[in-house]
Amino acid sequence: MHVSERYVRGLATSLLEQRGVPRAAAWLQADVLIEAELRALPSHGLQRLPLLLARIERGLADPSATGAHRWRRRGLLEVEGQRALGPVALIAALEALAPAIQDTGVALAAIRNANHIGMLAYYVEQAALRGLIGIVLSTSEALVHPFGGTKAALGTNPIAIGIPTGKAPFVLDLATSLVPMGKIHSHALRGENLQPGWAVNADGNPTIDPEAAKSGAIAPFGGAKGYGLGLAFELLVAALAGSDLAPEIRGTLDATHPVNKGDVLILIDPGADGGLMARLAAYLDALRVSRPADVNRPVAIPGDGMRARRSAALRDGIELPEAVFNELQALQDACPRTEG
Amino acid sequence: MHVSERYVRGLATSLLEQRGVPRAAAWLQADVLIEAELRALPSHGLQRLPLLLARIERGLADPSATGAHRWRRRGLLEVEGQRALGPVALIAALEALAPAIQDTGVALAAIRNANHIGMLAYYVEQAALRGLIGIVLSTSEALVHPFGGTKAALGTNPIAIGIPTGKAPFVLDLATSLVPMGKIHSHALRGENLQPGWAVNADGNPTIDPEAAKSGAIAPFGGAKGYGLGLAFELLVAALAGSDLAPEIRGTLDATHPVNKGDVLILIDPGADGGLMARLAAYLDALRVSRPADVNRPVAIPGDGMRARRSAALRDGIELPEAVFNELQALQDACPRTEG
Repeated sequence: MHVSERYVRGLATSLLEQRGVPRAAAWLQADVLIEAELRALPSHGLQRLPLLLARIERGLADPSATGAHRWRRRGLLEVEGQRALGPVALIAALEALAPAIQDTGVALAAIRNANHIGMLAYYVEQAALRGLIGIVLSTSEALVHPFGGTKAALGTNPIAIGIPTGKAPFVLDLATSLVPMGKIHSHALRGENLQPGWAVNADGNPTIDPEAAKSGAIAPFGGAKGYGLGLAFELLVAALAGSDLAPEIRGTLDATHPVNKGDVLILIDPGADGGLMARLAAYLDALRVSRPADVNRPVAIPGDGMRARRSAALRDGIELPEAVFNELQALQDACPRTEG
Repeated sequence: MHVSERYVRGLATSLLEQRGVPRAAAWLQADVLIEAELRALPSHGLQRLPLLLARIERGLADPSATGAHRWRRRGLLEVEGQRALGPVALIAALEALAPAIQDTGVALAAIRNANHIGMLAYYVEQAALRGLIGIVLSTSEALVHPFGGTKAALGTNPIAIGIPTGKAPFVLDLATSLVPMGKIHSHALRGENLQPGWAVNADGNPTIDPEAAKSGAIAPFGGAKGYGLGLAFELLVAALAGSDLAPEIRGTLDATHPVNKGDVLILIDPGADGGLMARLAAYLDALRVSRPADVNRPVAIPGDGMRARRSAALRDGIELPEAVFNELQALQDACPRTEG
């Protein structure tokens, strides 16, 4: 079903406020979920809200925490996430780094024990719109097997990189798994087989059965290289944030455990002048019109598709599974009082 | 043929000193090439030395330059490479960042116009041995086509990440191309076909003919994701270093053009205590013995194979093509006088 962005924004914000989330934080958490919906990334969208509400109700997410900041050095911020909502902790860290970067040129926040931060693109886009290069890393439960291995031992360990170009920013956001766990689940729902090579079952044997894959592991993207990058990100985040490693991580997919993954945000002031920015934009424009392998599928620049889908969704509404909408509406109907 | 590491080290250092490279710089440049040979990465080894010597003779590499440093901010160093030898500029930048990091916790050097820096692992390993996380990026001539594209428009844009773990450091070093250009050349030499999907010819059509691929383009690794990462690194380096973009880059594969690519070095002080380091090392040890898909091929940790090959080569000698050895020896015979 199509629902208006404004309607679900109000609904999500209200549900969060009812559970004690201050208005600005509720707006931010809802915005991160809705921006994922607008970009057709439902795995990071409103389907995550009921779990988050349950986590708040059970004390696993603190509605008013923003993270405790300690500057280890002028450019290195350590954040004890205090079970804060992920977007709240991440944006608080970004706001803290922004003035530091005037002094240091590059600054880094390492965050532990904050809840799920959602779509990483959200944050690096905000950095790029401020004229800064932004890099975000995040870890997760063990879902990915090593290259040449059979057991889930790495997180999906996504990375996002945002780079200002003078025009629309370059925004890359990808998981280091070959496919998202959400894709395994959606194949299971539709009763479709997986493609060979996507996953192994609990015994570590290759499978095309999505149900078997759920208790197994997903392959890393890009063979040995993608595995190496995912592993590097796993170590980098844990070394900086003091967060746990994938096999011990809980709390982004359940309503029973405190969250113990980590997030890293790096901001860099490129200090690039207009001429350099124009060269970057011209290079990307040349790629967009370079000869494609298939004339019906022009060469894509990361971020372009996302922006196009967002524009369409703002015009036509968000495509939301009826089950997700009904669940949210039922939660609202059960508790119509709006606080704050 | 097998040659002793000590012999070729003396040969390479002597050839560089004969052309005016100061002794310490000659040792460093030779060391970077020889470390690549020891790790069985001949594409970054001694076969590059004759080209480098020719570049020095023609004024395209300045034997005594080390790069001009300007601190844009406390943690952000801008390096005009002044046609310096790549390893000399890179290590000078690393030495300059190391004290800054005591103050800032994270620091970055952006280098333009330095010659080829060789195997990136060299630098991040040095960082890790100092207890620092090191990240190095470098750009190159256009050799890689975009995902869904047909024309060479990106560099091979490698990344290296070094992370101290208390034991042997984690060292990842990979190009964002599916295969190295060196592999295309070695297939051509041996008259072997490429694997489908590796490359396109000059017209942008898929080819398994290595000769046709030489004038075409290599695929990015990991499909759309690897392409996205390679493109992000391309933009990141150019935005920070003010260096050129791949289609305009020259000077790492020829002896006719000044070099205009860029390099970025990031150092981060993890400030991790012994307990955290031990957790990282234990996690990697668990991966090494986790059940492999093929019991004869255990799960590998980036850096392990490199270290094993290095130990073997130090014992057995470096495996060097006779043509490369003969070329170096002839250069030495032609100019036996050693300066410095």
